Amino acid sequence: MAVYKKVQIVGTSGESLEDAIQKAIARASKTLRNLGWFEVKEIRGALAEGRVKEYQVVIEVGFRLEDADSL
Amino acid sequence: MAVYKKVQIVGTSGESLEDAIQKAIARASKTLRNLGWFEVKEIRGALAEGRVKEYQVVIEVGFRLEDADSL
Amino acid sequence: MAVYKKVQIVGTSGESLEDAIQKAIARASKTLRNLGWFEVKEIRGALAEGRVKEYQVVIEVGFRLEDADSL
Amino acid sequence: MAVYKKVQIVGTSGESLEDAIQKAIARASKTLRNLGWFEVKEIRGALAEGRVKEYQVVIEVGFRLEDADSL
Amino acid sequence: MAVYKKVQIVGTSGESLEDAIQKAIARASKTLRNLGWFEVKEIRGALAEGRVKEYQVVIEVGFRLEDADSL
Amino acid sequence: MAVYKKVQIVGTSGESLEDAIQKAIARASKTLRNLGWFEVKEIRGALAEGRVKEYQVVIEVGFRLEDADSL
Amino acid sequence: MAVYKKVQIVGTSGESLEDAIQKAIARASKTLRNLGWFEVKEIRGALAEGRVKEYQVVIEVGFRLEDADSL
Amino acid sequence: MAVYKKVQIVGTSGESLEDAIQKAIARASKTLRNLGWFEVKEIRGALAEGRVKEYQVVIEVGFRLEDADSL
Amino acid sequence: MAVYKKVQIVGTSGESLEDAIQKAIARASKTLRNLGWFEVKEIRGALAEGRVKEYQVVIEVGFRLEDADSL
Amino acid sequence: MAVYKKVQIVGTSGESLEDAIQKAIARASKTLRNLGWFEVKEIRGALAEGRVKEYQVVIEVGFRLEDADSL
Amino acid sequence: MAVYKKVQIVGTSGESLEDAIQKAIARASKTLRNLGWFEVKEIRGALAEGRVKEYQVVIEVGFRLEDADSL
Amino acid sequence: MAVYKKVQIVGTSGESLEDAIQKAIARASKTLRNLGWFEVKEIRGALAEGRVKEYQVVIEVGFRLEDADSL
Repeated sequence: MAVYKKVQIVGTSGESLEDAIQKAIARASKTLRNLGWFEVKEIRGALAEGRVKEYQVVIEVGFRLEDADSL
Repeated sequence: MAVYKKVQIVGTSGESLEDAIQKAIARASKTLRNLGWFEVKEIRGALAEGRVKEYQVVIEVGFRLEDADSL
Repeated sequence: MAVYKKVQIVGTSGESLEDAIQKAIARASKTLRNLGWFEVKEIRGALAEGRVKEYQVVIEVGFRLEDADSL
Repeated sequence: MAVYKKVQIVGTSGESLEDAIQKAIARASKTLRNLGWFEVKEIRGALAEGRVKEYQVVIEVGFRLEDADSL
Repeated sequence: MAVYKKVQIVGTSGESLEDAIQKAIARASKTLRNLGWFEVKEIRGALAEGRVKEYQVVIEVGFRLEDADSL
Repeated sequence: MAVYKKVQIVGTSGESLEDAIQKAIARASKTLRNLGWFEVKEIRGALAEGRVKEYQVVIEVGFRLEDADSL
Repeated sequence: MAVYKKVQIVGTSGESLEDAIQKAIARASKTLRNLGWFEVKEIRGALAEGRVKEYQVVIEVGFRLEDADSL
Repeated sequence: MAVYKKVQIVGTSGESLEDAIQKAIARASKTLRNLGWFEVKEIRGALAEGRVKEYQVVIEVGFRLEDADSL
Repeated sequence: MAVYKKVQIVGTSGESLEDAIQKAIARASKTLRNLGWFEVKEIRGALAEGRVKEYQVVIEVGFRLEDADSL
Repeated sequence: MAVYKKVQIVGTSGESLEDAIQKAIARASKTLRNLGWFEVKEIRGALAEGRVKEYQVVIEVGFRLEDADSL
Repeated sequence: MAVYKKVQIVGTSGESLEDAIQKAIARASKTLRNLGWFEVKEIRGALAEGRVKEYQVVIEVGFRLEDADSL
Repeated sequence: MAVYKKVQIVGTSGESLEDAIQKAIARASKTLRNLGWFEVKEIRGALAEGRVKEYQVVIEVGFRLEDADSL
């Protein structure tokens, strides 16, 4: 049966929480295959001039390992 | 004084976290009365083709029990 | 080196999670200077008529203390 | 061997923590049989005029399922 | 999109952790449809005569709600 | 919409948990307005001569901010 | 400087949470000296006939070690 | 009413999680009476040559104190 | 002195929790050297036809870094 | 009996964890009286050029409220 | 295979966190054999005159049980 | 905007907590660029002859991903 790996990534966005998540996923998909699911671990952000400058969403991304993948 | 019950529901949406929450609340309101509040317990999602396919938000919904309600 | 303080604030919004966060930050920035970051501690909300009436986002806001600031 | 179910209930009382717990148990026992144990998950309350107006105790109640019980 | 519900069940077994989980799932499947996944929340047990008399595994079972299901 | 602040206070009492909570609330209400709710975060106490000398209940008190309030 | 040890004890009472705590402390003081403080770790209880039969309060008791004490 | 004590023990086994638990309970029962229940706190293990060499299960064992027991 | 790295892997099995752990370890040992220990972080599974179809055990695997290892 | 307040402060230091804690305490003592205890909530830091540039220790500081103190 | 026990000890020091840990270990080694490892559970301290008077580090100490050891 | 990755590393030292952290950071910086921050997740250690033989500090190290980095 399958074995999966999870890696922890932080997406950032000036727009929204969903955009921060999508940015993290998009980056992960550039070098990882078989992305299956994500889990939000932490939501935080940077402030400037009394406003949210950047949402930072820490996620764990799970993906199925293929035979040739190194860990 | 009032007694409340909490049930755990998972809303899903391809759009946003808020939409996933609203979908869970809308479904709960079909068979439960006196919905009072919700608490987000977990945020996760499914991935496909390097993008978020579905946001999954696990919430607890609290509602006031009426005399005739079974638990 | 700098010393920071963190305070816990609850922003509310009928619109979105981001709007609730922004409302909390905007209010904090009225009387606090040097706001640096925020951390989301809890997401919940009030329900009415089978819909989300109000998102409530509990955040901690961190800011750098100046010499003259009282704690 | 037995299988049990746990449900989450919030008892309230203007008097005491124990009274809030008892109110939740009493309400649960109206429609559930074989109540076995409870676990306190959260203690909170509402305030009015500088005093505790209502203790709110969130408990999980465990009970043994009988063959005919629906979940 | 789908909405899911999670219920908390305790399976018991004198044999093994897996057997306790299977007993809880088997009981849940008698009255719930569309069971999708489970999550182990707690592992404990009763002792007698210096041995494990009963493993008790607390799980949350998730299932997809159909239109006609009451919550 | 409203913005709230939460502060962390420790009430003490030689009598009961409820009394320790009430003492904390009473003290908070002397200088804070619009107290809305409290959450118990920790229960502990001091011992002397083999008895509880003092219950210590750590609570978070939430209150609505008015326009003129400094944080 | 002093070194302390903490042991975990469960007090029970049919009356109240405070009584369960006091019973645990009283029992501990029979064989332990220099009891200093306690921390509540868990509150639960047994049910019978639709009522709380017994409050069970899990506490950690801290005490200062004397030179001759074995651990 | 009864007072209980809980001690933390780590059982190990090359075979299974259940065997590690049983080994811990068997050892505890050699010098403790009235063992009542256990709770799994942590599951880990040692690896060697690309395989699990030893399962390590950290449990808390609860037992009823008799009058003559020292703590 | 040594420096270690921990990676998060999910083993799956239709048979048992131990088999899911062993599958994850076996896969990790294909591309990682010096595996030293594992910690179970989460136990869950997939259901089908009223039975456990697959146990999923999330573990963290720790291994000693050699000089030439990239992180 | 006494009522205490806890505030959350972040001390920083390029030297050590203890120095970061002392810096936070020293700053707090400039405007708060009756400081009684602290609790470490989080340890983190900033990196630069492959070294720790700054330790950041988040602590909660507890102090006894006097009659005239505003919260 | 071996069985281990864990006990909870609080070391104190006016100097440093490491010194508080060492003091707790040194005290434990006076009456316990086969000490194997420790885990830090909590870091706190007492304050006096605007400075740290005493670091208090709560640790769990694990040691291998010998056949003759009572628990 | 930037995307970050976090990896979990365990530094060890016979000297101090800070030294264990520095050793982990130094090792990470040999093969990772753009190291930004660390978070302490766990503090433990090995004992020998009644003394701390080795401090083990589990940290998460965050670093900004460059376009060419594989995950």
